[in-house]
Amino acid sequence: MTPEDFRKHGHELIDMIAEYLEGVAEQRIVPDIDPGDVRAMLPEHPPTEPESWESVMADVERVVVPTITHWQHPNWFAYFPSNTSYPSILGELLSAGLGVQGMSWVTSPACTEIETLMLDWMQELLDLPDRFRSTSEHGGGVIQGSASEAALVAILAARWRATDAAVNADGDTGRLTAYTTSQAHSSVEKGLRIAGIGSDRIRIVDHDDEFAMSPSALAAAVDADVAAGLVPFFVCSTHGTTSSLAFDPTDAVADICAERRIWLHVDAAMSGIAALAPEYRWVNAGVDRADSYATNPHKWMGVNFDCTLFWTADRAALLGALSILPEYLRSQAAESGRAIDYRDWQVPLGRRFRALKLWFTIRLDGVESIRERIRRDVSLTQDLASWVGDDDRFEIVAPHPLNLLCLRLDDGNEATDALIDAVNSAGNSHVTRTVLDGRSALRVSIGARTTEREHVDAFWAELARLTPAAS
Amino acid sequence: MTPEDFRKHGHELIDMIAEYLEGVAEQRIVPDIDPGDVRAMLPEHPPTEPESWESVMADVERVVVPTITHWQHPNWFAYFPSNTSYPSILGELLSAGLGVQGMSWVTSPACTEIETLMLDWMQELLDLPDRFRSTSEHGGGVIQGSASEAALVAILAARWRATDAAVNADGDTGRLTAYTTSQAHSSVEKGLRIAGIGSDRIRIVDHDDEFAMSPSALAAAVDADVAAGLVPFFVCSTHGTTSSLAFDPTDAVADICAERRIWLHVDAAMSGIAALAPEYRWVNAGVDRADSYATNPHKWMGVNFDCTLFWTADRAALLGALSILPEYLRSQAAESGRAIDYRDWQVPLGRRFRALKLWFTIRLDGVESIRERIRRDVSLTQDLASWVGDDDRFEIVAPHPLNLLCLRLDDGNEATDALIDAVNSAGNSHVTRTVLDGRSALRVSIGARTTEREHVDAFWAELARLTPAAS
Repeated sequence: MTPEDFRKHGHELIDMIAEYLEGVAEQRIVPDIDPGDVRAMLPEHPPTEPESWESVMADVERVVVPTITHWQHPNWFAYFPSNTSYPSILGELLSAGLGVQGMSWVTSPACTEIETLMLDWMQELLDLPDRFRSTSEHGGGVIQGSASEAALVAILAARWRATDAAVNADGDTGRLTAYTTSQAHSSVEKGLRIAGIGSDRIRIVDHDDEFAMSPSALAAAVDADVAAGLVPFFVCSTHGTTSSLAFDPTDAVADICAERRIWLHVDAAMSGIAALAPEYRWVNAGVDRADSYATNPHKWMGVNFDCTLFWTADRAALLGALSILPEYLRSQAAESGRAIDYRDWQVPLGRRFRALKLWFTIRLDGVESIRERIRRDVSLTQDLASWVGDDDRFEIVAPHPLNLLCLRLDDGNEATDALIDAVNSAGNSHVTRTVLDGRSALRVSIGARTTEREHVDAFWAELARLTPAAS
Repeated sequence: MTPEDFRKHGHELIDMIAEYLEGVAEQRIVPDIDPGDVRAMLPEHPPTEPESWESVMADVERVVVPTITHWQHPNWFAYFPSNTSYPSILGELLSAGLGVQGMSWVTSPACTEIETLMLDWMQELLDLPDRFRSTSEHGGGVIQGSASEAALVAILAARWRATDAAVNADGDTGRLTAYTTSQAHSSVEKGLRIAGIGSDRIRIVDHDDEFAMSPSALAAAVDADVAAGLVPFFVCSTHGTTSSLAFDPTDAVADICAERRIWLHVDAAMSGIAALAPEYRWVNAGVDRADSYATNPHKWMGVNFDCTLFWTADRAALLGALSILPEYLRSQAAESGRAIDYRDWQVPLGRRFRALKLWFTIRLDGVESIRERIRRDVSLTQDLASWVGDDDRFEIVAPHPLNLLCLRLDDGNEATDALIDAVNSAGNSHVTRTVLDGRSALRVSIGARTTEREHVDAFWAELARLTPAAS
């Protein structure tokens, strides 16, 4: 492709994206297709000659757009908000265009330093503890690809600290035990498994009837393990669980962790961003005593995936766990101790210039507009909750302080599952099913960029219509 | 940002990227700055009001462009080729614009199915074994973010298989031993460490004087461990080592692995892509007996980072190691067994639509133009090698069948290090230092999209000029 063609087709693609995003409400939110249908529309073998831009774009329109699930749709109430704002799309484009590698400071200084600055800006905007700042004595932050990777590196840092670094040589994790609830994200178990902490040594701590961790149950589990000669090393406290946006009581959990020097990771992937609005700063209560913390601008903030912010108050443990230095990666800048090499803060070596999309979003859309969107989403969720609460066919099954509502039919699991299927089959909106203490629930997550009152109104009308009369 | 502004500024950004890439030769290849200099050019605190597009772009020009390291520069001879082709930039843009999540088939069918098709296309184009195809009985492929992550998931699959899945419950890796050479990429040690295989149980197998693994040394190490009651479980054979592009003898290694049922991972991150040209298919010799294989289109192929292709012949082990299924991620499509959920093929849960950039590159630039670029780069490297070989001040320290040349001064380490510093300080080109068997080497990697004969000529002239007369 020549530079001239790139300009021409690049402009066309920008226009196509704007058209797609502005018209996304017209799409069927989830394609009605079976596995294999997409592939059947495309050639089984690669082309031997270059093809025209027009033929590729024709396939984008004919094959891709009709067979993706439209996460940007205003009636998207499934999983989580995964907004892709215009400034962040442009930030991602610039990252691809500059084509730099940010694995270490010297391989592209701006990539590292703007990332560090963005983490400090976000620490300030979210009112997170100063000990997470890059300018603090022991802390710092980094962009990870996902909250899964954030949880994994927290576990690895914790493992290193709990074994006094010995694990790097002997790999012995045999006495380590970890703690979370059944409501924690699956990535916590996955990260522990990867790190050699099998399910036998993961304690699923009881939760209360609001799906938040019970501190007394945690204390009892820790004590029992210590009595058995085991070494409690890691607790994950969730701020906004995936199933119901429950908040674990991090203050009380931190007391227990402090006593035993257990690494406390706070997974605020879903809800931490709400703290951009001062009235929701409670979402990060207790975090000032955490060893590490993660939240996702690629969920509620409108920065396109992937962009997880990860902070630690103990970067020495993180570096101890993840640093490996071959000759071809040495640099004077890093050895002087004045430069950050982010490759040692993550699992992969290579890294994109992801800070650009955060920088673009904060500067171009501005934080106030994100705060307004957060307030709008909470308000819409509370309205929906009041309508559901007034309808005696439904039961609200969990607290709903933010933008997620879990409801079920009084008629039970089967009826609830049937309603979820009916909503999703109708194809006008999309919700997720979850199970809370054995009970099916229809889970409504509100927060797409384009979702307005009319969409929630229409969703409620449809929900009410598809629900059988009270029995 | 309004859709109208997005169109307008998107066009401007496309033009800016074209201008940057076409003019990149004018940039100082590595910025002459110290740690902290970038940050000092930017506000310490986030803005409270939205800023204009113009002010952000002014900072891109004033701060970012002068302080990145220009990996796209035609005189880029450091690390590895990290090309960002025009079609792949547009593929990345479309991925950001559509804003879909490809964690499972149902969360965006096209994202999964086009990825699977791209892996099958690439299997064909690289002439890799049929048992890696998605349509094979036990194999399949996936895009990973980096070769580091590919190595890690290979290790996890190997760990699962070697312990008959027990590791998921007991986390016991205490008897597992792994094998590679000192020339393997640092990500192999890092992946093993993460998986609980500490340095005590990583065997650094001897290499020959061409930096390739010695099969007899491997066999001896494996036998000794078996005799000691240990369980050899993982061998990494590298096709194109980072320091010198050495090729481990995978055929002979595979014999040893087969006998003991050891997982054989082939890390062809650097060089596997060369097999796009039929005359370089030897780069993948022996791969037909590997359990897993990785190569990087984001290195020599021109697909912008991140895009690592990972194939396995034993997907059951991969899924056994990485699957975790909470209620909110269940789907009928996956449970029917007909759909692939790529979240279970990788460490993170979320995933971008990375297949688009590969699809765009193959279709728009075409494979033939990539083959030509590979041939050009090899030819330029061989020319440089002949000039260096004819100059008695230099010694070529490793075989150089492809696009990497390692050389040193006859005068020794100090003189070689001084030459590397002189080349990089001059600022006209950029090379990497490595150490091969204790001897410093100047490592010249040729393969930027824009590198032509004139750039290699000029590099050689400068190298010759900066080198002291023979002593």
